[in-house]
Amino acid sequence: MEWISRRNILIVGLGLMGGSYARALKRLGFHIIAIDKDTDSVRWAEEQGIIDRGYDYVDEDAVRDADAAIFALYPEVFVQWIRDWQHLFKPGLRITDVTGVKACVVYDVQAALREDVEFIAAHPMAGREVYGVRNSDERIFRDANYIVVPTEKNTREAVEWCKSLGRLLGFRHIAELSPEEHDEMIGFVSQLTHVIAVSLMTCSDNTHLVDYTGDSFRDLTRIARINDAMWSELFLMNREPLLRQMDVFLEEMAGFRKMLESGDIEGMRAKMRLSTERRALFDKKKN
Amino acid sequence: MEWISRRNILIVGLGLMGGSYARALKRLGFHIIAIDKDTDSVRWAEEQGIIDRGYDYVDEDAVRDADAAIFALYPEVFVQWIRDWQHLFKPGLRITDVTGVKACVVYDVQAALREDVEFIAAHPMAGREVYGVRNSDERIFRDANYIVVPTEKNTREAVEWCKSLGRLLGFRHIAELSPEEHDEMIGFVSQLTHVIAVSLMTCSDNTHLVDYTGDSFRDLTRIARINDAMWSELFLMNREPLLRQMDVFLEEMAGFRKMLESGDIEGMRAKMRLSTERRALFDKKKN
Repeated sequence: MEWISRRNILIVGLGLMGGSYARALKRLGFHIIAIDKDTDSVRWAEEQGIIDRGYDYVDEDAVRDADAAIFALYPEVFVQWIRDWQHLFKPGLRITDVTGVKACVVYDVQAALREDVEFIAAHPMAGREVYGVRNSDERIFRDANYIVVPTEKNTREAVEWCKSLGRLLGFRHIAELSPEEHDEMIGFVSQLTHVIAVSLMTCSDNTHLVDYTGDSFRDLTRIARINDAMWSELFLMNREPLLRQMDVFLEEMAGFRKMLESGDIEGMRAKMRLSTERRALFDKKKN
Repeated sequence: MEWISRRNILIVGLGLMGGSYARALKRLGFHIIAIDKDTDSVRWAEEQGIIDRGYDYVDEDAVRDADAAIFALYPEVFVQWIRDWQHLFKPGLRITDVTGVKACVVYDVQAALREDVEFIAAHPMAGREVYGVRNSDERIFRDANYIVVPTEKNTREAVEWCKSLGRLLGFRHIAELSPEEHDEMIGFVSQLTHVIAVSLMTCSDNTHLVDYTGDSFRDLTRIARINDAMWSELFLMNREPLLRQMDVFLEEMAGFRKMLESGDIEGMRAKMRLSTERRALFDKKKN
């Protein structure tokens, strides 16, 4: 397997996701080098044996030695990093990432990148409500989806390499989507749901209702605890798809409101039956 | 304890909730008589020992013998039942119910009721996604709220009696609200959340996204599997409070949409921080 000869893996950005990648890949025998500006994260990960070597600055030899590189940085930081340091990359190096939105990142990075190095984008749809390398945990991959997001610039070999990385990390389901398909999907299943949960918590002062909330309210607002810096940036980077999804949802709910107002019981029941039928598919698929 | 002398409990309507009441109260030593038009439910509950005696018609002696009565019927059926059969009630009988909306039921029943019989309303905020006596289970009360909903017509004794019933059933939290407070609360924590979940499932054909949904989408749509007959009726019975809550939510979400569209990152972050802070209270209270 090609991976065996690619021994040195460079992880840039050692937070929750970078740390979880490091744990999984180190266990498989790879040599893990990490770069993160946070000294404490790097020291701690070294002490814990999560990584083999870590730097709180860009160590040029560490970059030169890399046989594969995984970027877990905020998008603008990522593109700038590539511009600043790609002269150090080994020819033929393969790069992937963990960014949660794609169209606004992938094309920029690929445009900035040297011709003899390939960037194949990926989105590991895993996470926790907590952050940082100290909370990293490779078990978050087990029930999660891993999406490879190729463009016309990518070779078939790189796509397969990236899928095999997803399998090595232990993801349950590996898929392939274009950047645009990916962003629409994320706008709907992830970002729209977070906007809804946040709006439900903020629309009125409901704190006096704590005693009355049952499972349904708690289920709908679990994801309302949110990293505001990260999510607001993800929303802005995916603004158009998310606005489209919000409009579709708002229109649907306004339609339901009209049915309720006019006493259209048959209309409401038809929506409820459709909803029940569709949701049943999701339960089936899970099992 | 007053309950000990009130031996015969009549349960009218032997579905999920009536059956769960029967199980809990029979275990405590009460003599349980049930009336339900569904012959199979009544026979099955008798065979299982969930009830002592059951009738698929209104047995006059069963009604005459009742020392307390619990109604688990749809609202209009409930009011009509009272009109038709209240002449059989023992003087001083106490009646309660399980109806999920209050203002549209409580005043009508109290207005229709004989002067020497008292109806004290209650809402056991428990349930399952399945229906019927065969799915009844008293454990659904354990983590749930029980809300007593008195009006000016109620005596303090009846309110206390109703609270003690909630404690006997094993509810975690017993509260007291006016019909109007109850209906606003239910419009927000229960009905609005169901409208949102249904709208999220119906707003676009998302069945091809099954493979990509993570916990957040599944959490928000769990309650989208819904009994359309029951919920559409509950919505209509609570139309005004639910419309108000929907408007508040829709306006909030439209406001968030505007912030996203105009790139107001600070506005979005402030909403996310408020949401995070409020939701944390809910987690704390749960523990």
